[in-house]
Amino acid sequence: MNTANQTKTWKEKLHEIIYEADTPSGKLFDVVLLVLILASIVLVMLESVKNIDAKYHNALYIGEWIITIFFSIEYILRIITVKKPFKYIFSFYGILDLLSTIPMYISFVFAGSHALVTLRALRLLRVFRILKLARYLGASNQLRDSIIASRVKILVFLFAVLVSSVIFGTIMYLVEGEENGFTNIPKSVYWCIVTLTTVGFGDIAPQTALGQFITTIIMILGYGIIAVPTGIVSAEYSRNMKKSDDEKLKTTEPKINLNTQRCSNCHENNHDDDAYFCKVCGNNLH
Amino acid sequence: MNTANQTKTWKEKLHEIIYEADTPSGKLFDVVLLVLILASIVLVMLESVKNIDAKYHNALYIGEWIITIFFSIEYILRIITVKKPFKYIFSFYGILDLLSTIPMYISFVFAGSHALVTLRALRLLRVFRILKLARYLGASNQLRDSIIASRVKILVFLFAVLVSSVIFGTIMYLVEGEENGFTNIPKSVYWCIVTLTTVGFGDIAPQTALGQFITTIIMILGYGIIAVPTGIVSAEYSRNMKKSDDEKLKTTEPKINLNTQRCSNCHENNHDDDAYFCKVCGNNLH
Amino acid sequence: MNTANQTKTWKEKLHEIIYEADTPSGKLFDVVLLVLILASIVLVMLESVKNIDAKYHNALYIGEWIITIFFSIEYILRIITVKKPFKYIFSFYGILDLLSTIPMYISFVFAGSHALVTLRALRLLRVFRILKLARYLGASNQLRDSIIASRVKILVFLFAVLVSSVIFGTIMYLVEGEENGFTNIPKSVYWCIVTLTTVGFGDIAPQTALGQFITTIIMILGYGIIAVPTGIVSAEYSRNMKKSDDEKLKTTEPKINLNTQRCSNCHENNHDDDAYFCKVCGNNLH
Amino acid sequence: MNTANQTKTWKEKLHEIIYEADTPSGKLFDVVLLVLILASIVLVMLESVKNIDAKYHNALYIGEWIITIFFSIEYILRIITVKKPFKYIFSFYGILDLLSTIPMYISFVFAGSHALVTLRALRLLRVFRILKLARYLGASNQLRDSIIASRVKILVFLFAVLVSSVIFGTIMYLVEGEENGFTNIPKSVYWCIVTLTTVGFGDIAPQTALGQFITTIIMILGYGIIAVPTGIVSAEYSRNMKKSDDEKLKTTEPKINLNTQRCSNCHENNHDDDAYFCKVCGNNLH
Repeated sequence: MNTANQTKTWKEKLHEIIYEADTPSGKLFDVVLLVLILASIVLVMLESVKNIDAKYHNALYIGEWIITIFFSIEYILRIITVKKPFKYIFSFYGILDLLSTIPMYISFVFAGSHALVTLRALRLLRVFRILKLARYLGASNQLRDSIIASRVKILVFLFAVLVSSVIFGTIMYLVEGEENGFTNIPKSVYWCIVTLTTVGFGDIAPQTALGQFITTIIMILGYGIIAVPTGIVSAEYSRNMKKSDDEKLKTTEPKINLNTQRCSNCHENNHDDDAYFCKVCGNNLH
Repeated sequence: MNTANQTKTWKEKLHEIIYEADTPSGKLFDVVLLVLILASIVLVMLESVKNIDAKYHNALYIGEWIITIFFSIEYILRIITVKKPFKYIFSFYGILDLLSTIPMYISFVFAGSHALVTLRALRLLRVFRILKLARYLGASNQLRDSIIASRVKILVFLFAVLVSSVIFGTIMYLVEGEENGFTNIPKSVYWCIVTLTTVGFGDIAPQTALGQFITTIIMILGYGIIAVPTGIVSAEYSRNMKKSDDEKLKTTEPKINLNTQRCSNCHENNHDDDAYFCKVCGNNLH
Repeated sequence: MNTANQTKTWKEKLHEIIYEADTPSGKLFDVVLLVLILASIVLVMLESVKNIDAKYHNALYIGEWIITIFFSIEYILRIITVKKPFKYIFSFYGILDLLSTIPMYISFVFAGSHALVTLRALRLLRVFRILKLARYLGASNQLRDSIIASRVKILVFLFAVLVSSVIFGTIMYLVEGEENGFTNIPKSVYWCIVTLTTVGFGDIAPQTALGQFITTIIMILGYGIIAVPTGIVSAEYSRNMKKSDDEKLKTTEPKINLNTQRCSNCHENNHDDDAYFCKVCGNNLH
Repeated sequence: MNTANQTKTWKEKLHEIIYEADTPSGKLFDVVLLVLILASIVLVMLESVKNIDAKYHNALYIGEWIITIFFSIEYILRIITVKKPFKYIFSFYGILDLLSTIPMYISFVFAGSHALVTLRALRLLRVFRILKLARYLGASNQLRDSIIASRVKILVFLFAVLVSSVIFGTIMYLVEGEENGFTNIPKSVYWCIVTLTTVGFGDIAPQTALGQFITTIIMILGYGIIAVPTGIVSAEYSRNMKKSDDEKLKTTEPKINLNTQRCSNCHENNHDDDAYFCKVCGNNLH
């Protein structure tokens, strides 16, 4: 690896640090990034608390700007060090990185919009790369497969929940009326979902005997149907797990990709540990 | 198919458009219908919101009448184009179509009854025909079989829930009394179901120490027994899924009927894709 | 059977009507009994509603007494027609029958105690005998076996829930204090169980930032651990179902006892359909 | 065993009584300990109730001190009778025993801290030793294995719940604002978790139409994802149970250790019933 290293430009070195987590400096960069993301979320949260903001407004404000400037530089470097920048810009993480940087700049124009900085929470998804949780998650993918396999059934289930909410909501609006808090049908439907999902805020509650009787039916319905998605996911997951157990008996351990290298040319990140060149575009990886 | 088409009367053409979804015009008709159903539900919902109704009352009122007239014409055409109209009128969809059309007419006599227009939500069930979800749902029917197989057990479970609610409700009425909101036994039973299903509105809540102790027992009971229906459905579903997996190994892929043709004479809709005549009454399908 | 019938005394005939459900008159008796139980529960419920009681107090009162006298006669007949009355009196149903009869008499002494008449709801459990649900429930007993098999695990689980409630309740009492509704530790523990079971009445709710943070932990804990009993019951039930499936392949259909005959001498009720004499004490069954 | 007994010093006898539950006196000691733990928890709870404390303050106070002194003596004896006291002091139970003794002494300095005495609830975990529940729990350990096997998946799930709570919480803060109770982002996030876990206190509830619409999404999300951990635990538990069933067919019944002897020298407690000397350090066990 050292021989290849000698010919590296500063762009390639930066690319390795920013996009990969295999070298010590690359790992350090990722950890610093995560700490800054967490710090910025805490800063925005604290700023929204009246009496904390009153005391430390300037400190919080400066802190947020320092982090934002860091993120701005990081975003620009990410674009520069990649050979095909548009592929990064319009990728999931590219859009996310932009969205979590700009709210502070926009807040010059629209007051309050900088609260959107908490979108940075989504950037925490990067944590999975460092912790190499991919090993646990990626290897089997049983859970994802279970959810995909039961996708249509769960959608049909949600559709049924919505249709019954609309109908029960309208009935409750007619039965209880405006004087008991069911001021209009959309609000009644909202209340119906609150009840069906067993959340039950209690800001609106039936007052008439007939309304309470119908509520009883809604609650028992909600209590019963929660068994349906749970049963589906359990059963699908159980089947997938069994399938994968059966396969393990037949085949040798599947190759798990823990390598975090990313081609600076085509952004491909599915490389083997011993790969010197990108398998998609032939670009030198080191 | 063209040869058969030449001899079609306008009734047969309309029947194809209204009842089937295989031709482009038939598909278009279904999509227009679904959009109108959704629009009418939204209109009724908006009308129930005071300040929106105050501003746009006339627009909403005219919109609703236009949709109602369209539905009335559709209902009459459905009756005319079928050879045995009574079979349609007293079918599930026939009754539903009537019920979702008449509330607007009845609202001349009884104010407020037009809110029942939201019954049109049930007509949305037709969406399954277009999306051909039948493929996913109809093929296996595992979920339906699981619920049917565990039907008696779930009924016994609900019966047990109701009996315990009546007994705990009475005890709470005696313990808490009218001064703490448990004004009568039916209300106490209602509160007990609210608690047992973990909804917990909080409009009524125990105030005495003894009442709170009994509530603790009710809640832990409710928390524990939710495991029972979930466990039953999971296990039954798991078994059905396994059965169907085993059968797939033995038999060839079962024939799935995605054809939406419906005989204009006897209303039969279970035809093969290459069927030219109704398999029940011999009527020409094209 | 007719030959045996000729020698029957009135006691034996009454025993057949009251305790068994195989003859038409025995079935009729059971149905009348269930209707009266339901009627008496409805009467007590209605009486507890102020404005209904004000209007129809006398009618409700007379109705209750008629049913109570019927139950009293039934109870006495049950004792007379059985050859070993003490066995019945101290059996589960014997105690239940007494408990659901006496509250009206006690209400002469203690006002309000007649609300305990709703204990009659438990007598509804007899419904299983008529509906012969035993066929569905008794044959497999999978559900009961699952709950028994997971009994110790569920108890350990409940014990863990209670211990954490006591500890979190005390912490919340120290954090929130009396001014925010956590007036004492027992109340805090009660609130903690309300939260852990996801009921959430909202009559008491944390006000301080620290209290809300601890509440977050309690809620996520409660949300997570609900998976444990569900998982246990699902898995045990699934295993029992599989075992019973396996057994069905091996053995012939097991004999299910749908016979409701009950020996008037020793109260044994597990007789075969063709039994003329009690298998326990040799008493003539017809 | 009697021959070994003759050479016992008082230290060894005390060790047997305090640490073990095989001899009658050792069993009695454990039962007395559990009763005292329960009594002390009840005492602290009662003392926090205003009107009970007002009446019986002195009795409660004396009772607590008696129990605390007993626990102090027990703690000192535990240290003395063990040959390697530091091993006990820094073990899980050692720290627990200290923590549940000192709050009363600390309460001289900081008022109110004696409420931490309820930490003694954790000492109740010793109950498992007496009831020999280890037999049920220790033999299979299926439940523990299931939770460990699904540990990473459940952590990822909780991480996803937290990230969505932060994002939805911020959105609700922007939509609803301070005038509707969403006074700052941390509080909004707290409310979001209250809703997602279906607890729903109702102390804060959305008032605007848009806020109620977003709440609907949060609730259905929460209602749906509760299926995920349940499904995981069910499936893992089911697999572990099956594995253990398979193993039982192959092997003979595994040896279960119900012996509660504990070496007074090295604190090892995994001895066979017929062991006379500690298998780790060779110390005489009797």
